[in-house]
Amino acid sequence: MAVYTDISDAELEAFLSRYDLGAPISFKGVAEGVENSNFLLETDKGRYFLTIYERRVRREDLPFFLGFMQHLARRGFPGATPIEDREGRLLNELRGKPAAIVSFLTGISVRRPSPAHCREAGAGLAWLHQAGAGFEGRRFNDLGHEAWAGLFEPLLGEAEHLKPGLAAVIEGDLKHLAAAWPAGLPEGVIHADYFPDNVFFRDGRFTAAFDFYFAAWDALAYDIGVALNAWCFEADGSFNVTAARAFIAGYEQRRALSPDERRALPVLAHGAALRFFLTRLNDWRSTPEGALVRPKDPLEYERKLAVHRAGLAILEAAP
Amino acid sequence: MAVYTDISDAELEAFLSRYDLGAPISFKGVAEGVENSNFLLETDKGRYFLTIYERRVRREDLPFFLGFMQHLARRGFPGATPIEDREGRLLNELRGKPAAIVSFLTGISVRRPSPAHCREAGAGLAWLHQAGAGFEGRRFNDLGHEAWAGLFEPLLGEAEHLKPGLAAVIEGDLKHLAAAWPAGLPEGVIHADYFPDNVFFRDGRFTAAFDFYFAAWDALAYDIGVALNAWCFEADGSFNVTAARAFIAGYEQRRALSPDERRALPVLAHGAALRFFLTRLNDWRSTPEGALVRPKDPLEYERKLAVHRAGLAILEAAP
Repeated sequence: MAVYTDISDAELEAFLSRYDLGAPISFKGVAEGVENSNFLLETDKGRYFLTIYERRVRREDLPFFLGFMQHLARRGFPGATPIEDREGRLLNELRGKPAAIVSFLTGISVRRPSPAHCREAGAGLAWLHQAGAGFEGRRFNDLGHEAWAGLFEPLLGEAEHLKPGLAAVIEGDLKHLAAAWPAGLPEGVIHADYFPDNVFFRDGRFTAAFDFYFAAWDALAYDIGVALNAWCFEADGSFNVTAARAFIAGYEQRRALSPDERRALPVLAHGAALRFFLTRLNDWRSTPEGALVRPKDPLEYERKLAVHRAGLAILEAAP
Repeated sequence: MAVYTDISDAELEAFLSRYDLGAPISFKGVAEGVENSNFLLETDKGRYFLTIYERRVRREDLPFFLGFMQHLARRGFPGATPIEDREGRLLNELRGKPAAIVSFLTGISVRRPSPAHCREAGAGLAWLHQAGAGFEGRRFNDLGHEAWAGLFEPLLGEAEHLKPGLAAVIEGDLKHLAAAWPAGLPEGVIHADYFPDNVFFRDGRFTAAFDFYFAAWDALAYDIGVALNAWCFEADGSFNVTAARAFIAGYEQRRALSPDERRALPVLAHGAALRFFLTRLNDWRSTPEGALVRPKDPLEYERKLAVHRAGLAILEAAP
């Protein structure tokens, strides 16, 4: 939660002059997003978000992300709509960094989703998948299942340091997942980071999803696997089957899962837990001792992995 | 620029239930204010700022600050209006910390004020002084001229470390200011931190002043002294007499200065520069080596002090 790039009133005016948004009325840095600088911008025309892309997000991926967001908006999905400048560009530069303006979204994220929230979130994810259909852009999921063994290799020692014996257990996960990973599931552009803090509600109803900066081409049902980890675990580490069934039922209100997809959910969720464990372990390792901001604890996902090893077969039954 | 206290949707709803503001529609931490956590809050009723008071601001001073803001609002001054809860309270608690809701202000701060901005800002400050008249609260200015010698005592070594010979020069300032400090000037509640980042403009016109958390009882003209340091120096350290005259002329559009006040401006501005030098030197010293966020450079004010030592007598002439 930070603003890495500080923008003056003069820089803002110069940047805005490229757009047909009128004069700025209000401009505030917001403590949102770990990797980018985000500003709440109000002009004569309305309210917007100005994002300066700082790290992790690769410049060459931005046309895909912004194009996908524009595609979703045109199909009526409530995500942030990128705003074109006078020349039709979605991406510009501010202080030599890539920057974009997107529409402002209202709603509030929930910290501890109830099964009712999960049902709404599931329906929102299916809506996203439906609205995303037909988008012509492609981006390889560089954090997808083919990448995990390579991601883990330099982290073996760190895993062992985190918990003695863990490295061998993770290698077991990798072997199991490589053997059990489903092929031939319906594919499309997935959100890939559909966590509660990337979804807005109002009065208990889904109002928007955002932060598409991990979106990539992959099995649609893998997005459900990511979400089950993010939405359906209790603070004590236990898996809430009621919440998971509600999420899936909500999803199927909009898009029915095939028998193959449904059967694959436990292994997809297991793999998704491994993906977040690996990237968190990597972020954890890269943080210098004594840094003010500690990254998210990889042990949270290590505990979720243990649940997956025991099996989520219960998900396979129809709700 | 930080959010020190993270508030969940459930905590927000519980807090808001004390107020008659309706349901939350949007809630975002903003990167504003060094000492407090600030959130932009939108409800059915409008837009607000929720502030959680974290440090430096003493809990026992908050009724004075919030009461003064309410007084200003009732007199029509465009500052943030504190919102009463259903029981008429301006101050509540969130996560065990003092917290308040104030109205949202539009406008944008200017980084490099022009003389035209200074004229507007001067008129805004006089308006603030006029609107503040009649407020019954009193708060001693614990960073006022009587405090400076005591503030400097533990910082002697640090001043010398910053620049060899500086400690003796600052002691000279203290002696000069103690002897020359004016008595009997018109007093009232001053802002005491009237910097460009605490003032909003729109289309070049003053729209609001905020951040009253240094407000205290003192000579009104001392507020002009603080502002001349904050608004009228160039990036190269030179004093912009045109900007200063514009500030004073703007002020006098609303409230004429007495001959004594006008004559005192150079020494008041000199003292104000010392006050910010001392607190910045103290913040600088208190920051551990290698901290991510460095406080403001005390040398900026050490350079301003040098300008004041040479004399701002030019200000005494009528504009």
